[in-house]
Amino acid sequence: MMTTNKPVRVISAFGSPGGHRVEAALRLKGVPYELILEDLGNKSSDLLLKHNPVHKLVPVLLHGDRAVCESLVILEYVDEAFDGPPLLPADPYERTVARFWAHFIDHKFPRPFWLSFFLTEDDGGESSLQGLLTEAKQNLALLEVQLKDKGRNENDTRFFGGDSIGYLVIVGSSIAHWLGFFQEVAGVAPLLTEEEYPALSQWAKRYVADETVKQCLPKRSELFATYYASKQMIQAMATSNK
Amino acid sequence: MMTTNKPVRVISAFGSPGGHRVEAALRLKGVPYELILEDLGNKSSDLLLKHNPVHKLVPVLLHGDRAVCESLVILEYVDEAFDGPPLLPADPYERTVARFWAHFIDHKFPRPFWLSFFLTEDDGGESSLQGLLTEAKQNLALLEVQLKDKGRNENDTRFFGGDSIGYLVIVGSSIAHWLGFFQEVAGVAPLLTEEEYPALSQWAKRYVADETVKQCLPKRSELFATYYASKQMIQAMATSNK
Repeated sequence: MMTTNKPVRVISAFGSPGGHRVEAALRLKGVPYELILEDLGNKSSDLLLKHNPVHKLVPVLLHGDRAVCESLVILEYVDEAFDGPPLLPADPYERTVARFWAHFIDHKFPRPFWLSFFLTEDDGGESSLQGLLTEAKQNLALLEVQLKDKGRNENDTRFFGGDSIGYLVIVGSSIAHWLGFFQEVAGVAPLLTEEEYPALSQWAKRYVADETVKQCLPKRSELFATYYASKQMIQAMATSNK
Repeated sequence: MMTTNKPVRVISAFGSPGGHRVEAALRLKGVPYELILEDLGNKSSDLLLKHNPVHKLVPVLLHGDRAVCESLVILEYVDEAFDGPPLLPADPYERTVARFWAHFIDHKFPRPFWLSFFLTEDDGGESSLQGLLTEAKQNLALLEVQLKDKGRNENDTRFFGGDSIGYLVIVGSSIAHWLGFFQEVAGVAPLLTEEEYPALSQWAKRYVADETVKQCLPKRSELFATYYASKQMIQAMATSNK
């Protein structure tokens, strides 16, 4: 482990799911940090451009004068560079399973989900919207099976956390916390229902109720205001491409 | 470390850059494995569908009855589960830098590069082809700077390997070995030239000349035949979308 006496700063933006991941990981490790919020409505700060010149995106973790970018990479760094409870499991195979589903949540899961929320039938025709919804529900079902199919009973959803919150639970926070807001913003029927995905729903509830996590979880009312503006923008872009 | 007495199998396909990464990692670790090649011209085997039901893609590493999917995840697993020389650096920050550039090579680098090879000016207009070429060269320049800007002299390109081949060098094999073939297949002027990117060019030459790596590097002539067919297919698809 490295010493933790170098100052830790997090460049994020209000409501950023990736920024939340970094903050949650640091809080679970007990690492104090300074939070620097970008204003996404204005151009990127010099600090962000200096430390993430390749992607120019939040979140960025600054540890002393060293910068670490991309939330999944940052989570691995936080786990390796600081003391405190481990975020990834110790067993190599369990670690690999966690990384596989983290990549799934970041690279395969989002597209049909968010598109199905933001597009209306008028934007792409009923069939393409229906296809996106089907794909989004299939992705939820894959995660539900992972939570259940571990030879445990229905109340034991340790895979995404259980007794303690770790790497994959933190990655899944974009589903546990942000999904509800997007449903509300989009005004669509909730996809992640207790009836259809009981294990995922229970896990999501437990995540947002966690005392450590709650301290860096953006408030529903403020998130609503932020994403409602995004929805208007995306819908305007979709319409202009017709 | 886990014991290595469980059989190791790799599900790959001829010419797969991801499959090569897995084979190279195992060979560098000194882990014997059985290679199982999918025929990409036919439908996926039951073995592949069983062990990678989510993505249905090669490569898959089978360690005993456990499956690990996605080449970047597999490389981390191989490093953690088997003895032998480490693939990732020991220092948390160096590990994080390697992971950041690995993600860059897999998620940001490929699109403009391959598209600029396969599309002609007729497919998307001269300006879009020129834009792709510019983006591809900017990505090469970012990697070139990483190789050079480490306070070392021009001949010391340790960042991508140097004395020993590790995680990021293996990930970069898609550039070191496959890029030359794509240039040849596409019949375009080489982008990765000795003059413009001396550090990258030298590193690529050293990689393909390595005795361990060479044993699992597909032959130029056979790769040519495989990818020439792909080029025809992609061009036909591009044309049908006009």
